[in-house]
Amino acid sequence: MAFSQADHDYMAMAIELAKQGQYTTTPNPNVGCVIVKNDQVIGQGFHIQAGGPHAEVHALRQAAGNTQGATAYVTLEPCSHYGRTPPCAKGLIDAGVKKVVCAMVDPNPQVAGNGLKMLEEAGIETAFGLLEHEARALNKGFLSRMETGKPFVTAKLAASLDGKTALQNGQSKWITGPQARRDVQKYRAQSCAILSGADTVLVDDATLNVRAGEFDDFDKVSQLAELRQPIRVVIDTQNRLHPDLNLFSCASKIIIFRSKLDNRHQWPHFVEQVCLPTVNDKLDLRAALTYLAQQNVNQIWLEAGATLCGVMHEHGLIDEYMIYMAPKIIGEGGRGLFNSSVLTEMGQIAELEITECAQVGTDIRINATKK
Amino acid sequence: MAFSQADHDYMAMAIELAKQGQYTTTPNPNVGCVIVKNDQVIGQGFHIQAGGPHAEVHALRQAAGNTQGATAYVTLEPCSHYGRTPPCAKGLIDAGVKKVVCAMVDPNPQVAGNGLKMLEEAGIETAFGLLEHEARALNKGFLSRMETGKPFVTAKLAASLDGKTALQNGQSKWITGPQARRDVQKYRAQSCAILSGADTVLVDDATLNVRAGEFDDFDKVSQLAELRQPIRVVIDTQNRLHPDLNLFSCASKIIIFRSKLDNRHQWPHFVEQVCLPTVNDKLDLRAALTYLAQQNVNQIWLEAGATLCGVMHEHGLIDEYMIYMAPKIIGEGGRGLFNSSVLTEMGQIAELEITECAQVGTDIRINATKK
Repeated sequence: MAFSQADHDYMAMAIELAKQGQYTTTPNPNVGCVIVKNDQVIGQGFHIQAGGPHAEVHALRQAAGNTQGATAYVTLEPCSHYGRTPPCAKGLIDAGVKKVVCAMVDPNPQVAGNGLKMLEEAGIETAFGLLEHEARALNKGFLSRMETGKPFVTAKLAASLDGKTALQNGQSKWITGPQARRDVQKYRAQSCAILSGADTVLVDDATLNVRAGEFDDFDKVSQLAELRQPIRVVIDTQNRLHPDLNLFSCASKIIIFRSKLDNRHQWPHFVEQVCLPTVNDKLDLRAALTYLAQQNVNQIWLEAGATLCGVMHEHGLIDEYMIYMAPKIIGEGGRGLFNSSVLTEMGQIAELEITECAQVGTDIRINATKK
Repeated sequence: MAFSQADHDYMAMAIELAKQGQYTTTPNPNVGCVIVKNDQVIGQGFHIQAGGPHAEVHALRQAAGNTQGATAYVTLEPCSHYGRTPPCAKGLIDAGVKKVVCAMVDPNPQVAGNGLKMLEEAGIETAFGLLEHEARALNKGFLSRMETGKPFVTAKLAASLDGKTALQNGQSKWITGPQARRDVQKYRAQSCAILSGADTVLVDDATLNVRAGEFDDFDKVSQLAELRQPIRVVIDTQNRLHPDLNLFSCASKIIIFRSKLDNRHQWPHFVEQVCLPTVNDKLDLRAALTYLAQQNVNQIWLEAGATLCGVMHEHGLIDEYMIYMAPKIIGEGGRGLFNSSVLTEMGQIAELEITECAQVGTDIRINATKK
């Protein structure tokens, strides 16, 4: 389909709007909408929170009845089903818009083209595929869950310039600087779940939560909705966690994956123990991801030690690598990022693609994705 | 001193001119000159090659006698001594310029303020310190040699994202891509010497030379002067090199540092064996650098294995680290960048400063300097 420069500009605006929901919409996708009449934007909106109005509803409300013959730009196909809100396709039809342009079709099987169909059957002109790449980037977690049945997994790693996470004796406090740590809080806040291992929780006595005010967008988010704590997910194969840990001091949902329930302790009400099948005496992490997808987890922030990161990497379960590198050199004997099988042929090396490289305070962050 | 926007612009122009000599001026510094009269640039030039005219001479020639009352912008203080060419300060005086603005004073003890003094004594107004930081960056090698008696050492490193240079079994061919390799040729060509270890030369049968046409600025350089081969310098503690290696197939100067002359072989005429003192049975690399500075080596490109890089790093002899990172993960058992002493305290970690981070083809290059 051919789109004009104006089409591009309005859709880019809708994408920017959609981004504003990135801390709050989960498990719903981020969606933005712009309504245009006679080359004037008469309504704009974005989806803020599951259960609340969709982007189209916000935009239609702002346009306040002036929508006859207008064009709506939406970053995702309008929904066609009754969920917690009525279908947006119906809302657009009732509003009398002439044309609806979508960045992409909704892969949610409850929609999957039905929204566009509903509009077309009502005589509304439709088009899709405008800035689709950018629109997909808004919702990599939601799309992964819909298209593959697995959440999108981003591994957060931190190392010196020579790839070391700690001294040989394990000392590692503050490899990266304060701005990198703020950056991490931001990505934690955008995630549906933080995944870690019992080791990390025990050694660091980590809470794995999002700390209010400790990331740059905090003020913006807190104007929209209460700060949402991602589900904390811990792999505890040997039932080593105990309720006295800091992890349990924050009353938000925790899922512990293990092979056998641990009923030696009285766990707080927000803790769920989930038993996983084992493969060669190891927990089936693929099954863990499938379980989390079924719990509507779109996006996982993996923040763990070299053992869990090594296994996840080796099984191809990491979709994106975010490596914070501090301007330090540790050298010989320093601990590595991944405990994985020793490779014997160059062809076995995991090939990635670098998508971003940014200075973050005194450190740098390299983003790379599976090829 | 207060400088105007026009002063800034002319000096920035002179700095850009100076850069054009970056492959050819060694052991002389890169210098650019712009001559301005009535807000018009009437002459510009840069130093191309030692023994040839200095930047000021090129610029004065271009201004062709119209220099009475003009202002000269020079990136380095004009020289005051008779070397292979007459002093530039005298040239500027004879040309009748009214004012000379320098980015920085020349640290060369033969100049060191005498150029400015000579100008002032002739009644010419002088100023210095404009864009000094940028001017220093033009000549980090020359300045290091003048100010510390050592060349500036840049270590070229190449690794996977997790800091590995090879598999455990040593396989490592083409960790980085073709554009990174072109980039390396460029930095080799800018260097006065390439420093490596016998191991690297033996294992890779490396020539350590600059290959014509294999870097992006090659066409520009070859219009100025013949491609200069950096001196190839090899540390061969155990006298393992032999004249049949590829290294000796290219007839340009080679310095071999060792503890004891190796006269078992007939070495080509372009090979110089230099014996160094040993410290705890290891060659004194600091003495090697001092020797090279005395040979007018400004800038060293260290391209070696983890052993030599480890020792150089540990002794604080690396001024700049250029790490090419390929979007690959090798994981457990992969070889590291530095064989150095195992650290036991966080306070022992070498702290650097990241100065640049750039995408180079499919790889990235991180530049970091000693803090």
